[in-house]
Amino acid sequence: MRVAILIFEKLTALDAIGPYEVLRSVPGWEVRFVGPRKGPVRADSGALGLSADYGLDEVEQADVVLVPGGEGNRPLLEDEAVLSWLRRVDEGSKWTTSVCTGSLVLGAAGLLEGRKATCHWAFLEQLRGFGADPVGGRFVEDGKVVTAAGVSAGIDMALHLVGLEAGPEVAQAVQLGIEYDPQPPFEAGSPAKAPGPVVELVRSMAGATEEWGAGSSEPG
Amino acid sequence: MRVAILIFEKLTALDAIGPYEVLRSVPGWEVRFVGPRKGPVRADSGALGLSADYGLDEVEQADVVLVPGGEGNRPLLEDEAVLSWLRRVDEGSKWTTSVCTGSLVLGAAGLLEGRKATCHWAFLEQLRGFGADPVGGRFVEDGKVVTAAGVSAGIDMALHLVGLEAGPEVAQAVQLGIEYDPQPPFEAGSPAKAPGPVVELVRSMAGATEEWGAGSSEPG
Repeated sequence: MRVAILIFEKLTALDAIGPYEVLRSVPGWEVRFVGPRKGPVRADSGALGLSADYGLDEVEQADVVLVPGGEGNRPLLEDEAVLSWLRRVDEGSKWTTSVCTGSLVLGAAGLLEGRKATCHWAFLEQLRGFGADPVGGRFVEDGKVVTAAGVSAGIDMALHLVGLEAGPEVAQAVQLGIEYDPQPPFEAGSPAKAPGPVVELVRSMAGATEEWGAGSSEPG
Repeated sequence: MRVAILIFEKLTALDAIGPYEVLRSVPGWEVRFVGPRKGPVRADSGALGLSADYGLDEVEQADVVLVPGGEGNRPLLEDEAVLSWLRRVDEGSKWTTSVCTGSLVLGAAGLLEGRKATCHWAFLEQLRGFGADPVGGRFVEDGKVVTAAGVSAGIDMALHLVGLEAGPEVAQAVQLGIEYDPQPPFEAGSPAKAPGPVVELVRSMAGATEEWGAGSSEPG
């Protein structure tokens, strides 16, 4: 399986690296990081540099294509080079996927019309603008399009894909290999579980970033 | 808070990027990626390039120092430049931490003598060779030294540290921001939960890497 992960300036790194670590662990699966421009990419914090080893024109086919989120994907919503690349890769893909606000980019490419999809909880309703049907959930599968919730949800989605493509035993081996036996020390990972004031704080930070377009604290 | 994350050739990326995403989300916390050599670093899969923005001599002080795992840290066990750097940074740190087999590097630096510590489950017993007391657990805190289990466990450890240093509300906000509400599609994240044959498969892969020293499938 050939996996193409789109990375770009100001992406949220864990959106991409969580699924990468799962998918790259499957024997025979090959992951490529693809950028709107080939070369160095800075994550949204400014503190992490990644490498887009491939440009868009170098990876026209992939079995799995994955779009992460992060404030840096807002310009992509109007970047025709990226959107048409996504449409081309989607034509031949087995799975077209996203993590966090990456689903907004899939939406902008026209790939979510009439589909159920999810997103980071604070941005979920924005999917409607792309003709999608926003659905809460850790990840949402509609045909070959699988969209994951915020940031860390890509790990769960990737294990699901490995289970479908390589079988549950391989997925279990990958899960055990990365010792993915989560034990969060707090119970605040969703708006339903977190205390109200915490939800409002995070929502306001997300909203502020959305409005002003340049914060570094957006939850990806 | 100043956070220094050591990265090196053939590290397991999620070991570093999981905690990074948590720690960088705390307002006022600054993360720096430090390498034995400043410059580009390839993760163990070969498919991911990261940037060590700082050399060892450029970051002599940190409030949190974190050592990830991966087959690439084996050479570090005998790399006196790295080990003495760790000892120097540890002298002034509030927290000296590791993820996965990163604890073996802390051990080689002499920082685990007489301490309880953990590691990726398949390598846990190797801690004894460094005078540590191996303990199972998602992460193990002994004084200011906190060691996390395999790969994904760094996320839980980092949230714990944020809770201690910035308070539970900030930790909850970070958890909600990265929507860390894990729902693994399989129940195989620890040797106690995974089916026996899966445990043996992963153990043999880890052992093979350990013995031959050049596999790319080692679990972190």
